[in-house]
Amino acid sequence: MKQMILAVCMAWGFCPVTSAQQTDSVTIRSFFNKALGNGRAYDDLHYLCKNIGHRISGSAQAQQAVEFTFERMKSYGFDTVYLQEVMVPQWVRGAKETAFVTAGGKKIMDLHVTALGNSVGTGAAGASGKVVEVFSLKELEKLGRAVIEGNIVFYNRPFNDEHIVSFEAYRDAVDQRSSGAAEAAKYGAAAVVVRSMTHSLDDFPHTGALRYADGVKPIAAIAVSTADAEKMHELLIKNKDLKINLTTFCEMRPDVKSYNVIGELRGRVHPEEIITVGGHLDSWDIGEGAHDDGAGCVQSIEALRLFKLTGIKPARTLRCVMFMNEENGLRGGKVYAEQAALKKEKHYAAIESDRGGFTPRGFSVEAEADTVARMQRWVKLLAPYGLDKIEQGGGGADISPLNTQGTVLIGYVPDSQRYFDVHHAATDVFESVNKRELAMGAASMAAMLWLLSEYGF
Amino acid sequence: MKQMILAVCMAWGFCPVTSAQQTDSVTIRSFFNKALGNGRAYDDLHYLCKNIGHRISGSAQAQQAVEFTFERMKSYGFDTVYLQEVMVPQWVRGAKETAFVTAGGKKIMDLHVTALGNSVGTGAAGASGKVVEVFSLKELEKLGRAVIEGNIVFYNRPFNDEHIVSFEAYRDAVDQRSSGAAEAAKYGAAAVVVRSMTHSLDDFPHTGALRYADGVKPIAAIAVSTADAEKMHELLIKNKDLKINLTTFCEMRPDVKSYNVIGELRGRVHPEEIITVGGHLDSWDIGEGAHDDGAGCVQSIEALRLFKLTGIKPARTLRCVMFMNEENGLRGGKVYAEQAALKKEKHYAAIESDRGGFTPRGFSVEAEADTVARMQRWVKLLAPYGLDKIEQGGGGADISPLNTQGTVLIGYVPDSQRYFDVHHAATDVFESVNKRELAMGAASMAAMLWLLSEYGF
Repeated sequence: MKQMILAVCMAWGFCPVTSAQQTDSVTIRSFFNKALGNGRAYDDLHYLCKNIGHRISGSAQAQQAVEFTFERMKSYGFDTVYLQEVMVPQWVRGAKETAFVTAGGKKIMDLHVTALGNSVGTGAAGASGKVVEVFSLKELEKLGRAVIEGNIVFYNRPFNDEHIVSFEAYRDAVDQRSSGAAEAAKYGAAAVVVRSMTHSLDDFPHTGALRYADGVKPIAAIAVSTADAEKMHELLIKNKDLKINLTTFCEMRPDVKSYNVIGELRGRVHPEEIITVGGHLDSWDIGEGAHDDGAGCVQSIEALRLFKLTGIKPARTLRCVMFMNEENGLRGGKVYAEQAALKKEKHYAAIESDRGGFTPRGFSVEAEADTVARMQRWVKLLAPYGLDKIEQGGGGADISPLNTQGTVLIGYVPDSQRYFDVHHAATDVFESVNKRELAMGAASMAAMLWLLSEYGF
Repeated sequence: MKQMILAVCMAWGFCPVTSAQQTDSVTIRSFFNKALGNGRAYDDLHYLCKNIGHRISGSAQAQQAVEFTFERMKSYGFDTVYLQEVMVPQWVRGAKETAFVTAGGKKIMDLHVTALGNSVGTGAAGASGKVVEVFSLKELEKLGRAVIEGNIVFYNRPFNDEHIVSFEAYRDAVDQRSSGAAEAAKYGAAAVVVRSMTHSLDDFPHTGALRYADGVKPIAAIAVSTADAEKMHELLIKNKDLKINLTTFCEMRPDVKSYNVIGELRGRVHPEEIITVGGHLDSWDIGEGAHDDGAGCVQSIEALRLFKLTGIKPARTLRCVMFMNEENGLRGGKVYAEQAALKKEKHYAAIESDRGGFTPRGFSVEAEADTVARMQRWVKLLAPYGLDKIEQGGGGADISPLNTQGTVLIGYVPDSQRYFDVHHAATDVFESVNKRELAMGAASMAAMLWLLSEYGF
């Protein structure tokens, strides 16, 4: 009977507590004690947000962030700290964008807008046209050139609030931002205005990347705040002949040199097996990139620092990476994987934190179901810290290029409810991050690094 | 083998999905859909915070909150809505308190302070004395009258940041606030200054209730911000002869009449069995009582509204209660239980939401272990919404007087990390509450009401 219970329990992803697990629980507890009682993540984030600020790829601030995190890793005594060269795109916003609505030639409403990342500018001449409100790319296609040409497409499909995980609402809406301009350009639109990607109803526009289609002349694209999107919708019910005038000055400049920042703790048993942990150092050029992804950066550094602080030497090599250019090119992640392949490095696993510095909920794992099921034996050790779930799911953008190298990709999953309130907006500032939530995330990642390093899959 | 697996699984708190559970999952999903997509909790909280504001027992605002929630329950179409008379203490702060530190007769620092709830005032004459810093009531006792008499006791034991659940840090520190004045008075202290009950290091003092000891003359008591407490500690290292002058104008007035506000949905099968769900309508007289406990109030109303909205009739009677006077007397909770006993009502279970309007984590249950284990069969239904834990633990202050009537007491447990940032402070305002987190709490409570109502223990 005992064996059968054991078999059944194992099948359900549980096993009895062993003395190894008791040691593990002490180790994990020590990570949380240090992170909460003597952590540096919050102070490091403060520096990144307040002394440096937002740090779009190719900017002076991005370079300052490279230097700052390099120095921090050195000061924390990591075994090796180095830079990895990455050529990055340099998208520049230029003068502040403006947009307003007119009716019968009269201005009736200023809009809270921000140019979308990678978009072309209108220049001083601006763009204007009749507003054509659509709720999907499909609807755009139906309307076709007859309706769209020369006009301004207003994508206004809101987040579906009924999703429990806010990333699912984002996933369902983001095609408007990423492909809206490319699709509208095919039908000769003058420009596009996209409802901001957020659950929140407020005056803050949220930027984010778009992609243009090859062979189609790119058009200007801006995001508008959700509150203004709602107001425009109401106005359009009464008057179909609204126009928008918009002016943006952004441009894409030639690539410039930047860096991934890398720090290592050498493995005591399998130094050749690497477990990467990272976030992305670049951010958009509004707000302070606090949750996205200053949090993931300082947590990754802190996770390795917790090993130093507790005197725990990992069996496998732990490598902390500040990826450059996740937001508008993913060049850092691509170069990192290329170099790994070139150097024939064995990348055992990789963890990314890029869902904000919120309270811990678990990990999502890009691997076969049986690998995930084996990892679920650790839930018992992690649940006391709020990490109740290890589930199949995405790892993260920066580590995704490692997927061809057999690396198990793991996403740190904090609570998602507040993320899109601030994501890519002026509200993504240090003050929106809670010290304890941030610290617990760092300890959560250290705990997973420990389990991966000691036991593996 | 199948039976054995079943037996083992049941022992582990799991059972296979039945069609009843499939129906339950649809019902629970519908609560979350309505709460997130069409909820009223956030708007109701906005009214409570912005149109009424803080609402200490006996105040005009408390009366406005009674009238507002009464009308709201009526407007939502509850079967019965009524008031239950409660006599409440009326503690009044009076003119704004002040405190400052002197060294050698010179003022060196103003302090951010707030009088502790229920405390006596110094009046215009103020109180002053040498600062005696202690870290525990035990240390105070050791020092005794020789050191304490005529002086000002400064309780400065901080929250232990290593606790994962922030309520445990509160539990370990709060004796300084609740009993510090009573104990110091025994040794002839002039007054007490208590470090604020928070993890956060900032300039906001946190109030909260104290109790004086019978037969000992009460002394004035104030809370000081954590940042100021740290500064005073540093100053005291260099100079043991610091003095504090403080002036407070608070007083306890005779009891006044107030009300619990009660709304019911009558049970379709067992109308005589009552399941209570509630929060407390009173708050402290600073901030807006948003998380504490405006959130719990609007969530309780919303939980019943979700039944109306989905057209789901509960098997047992659901009763929503806005308890009056949790903060400084618990009179509402006491009267409610007294009346229940007097009327021989059968109170089957009670749920309280008084831990803030944060993201859902689970429920804590004041019952025998086997009752809790049986309730854990519902975790499978609740986990998709972040409710991963049903555990033995406290129910809540307002419902605690029902414990002699065989009622199972249940606390709704949201994430605790941010609660003490705002608890009893000027920062507990509407803006600190996230719409989705608040709504998910209401749906969580509706889900538990449904399961209790249909299946019970």
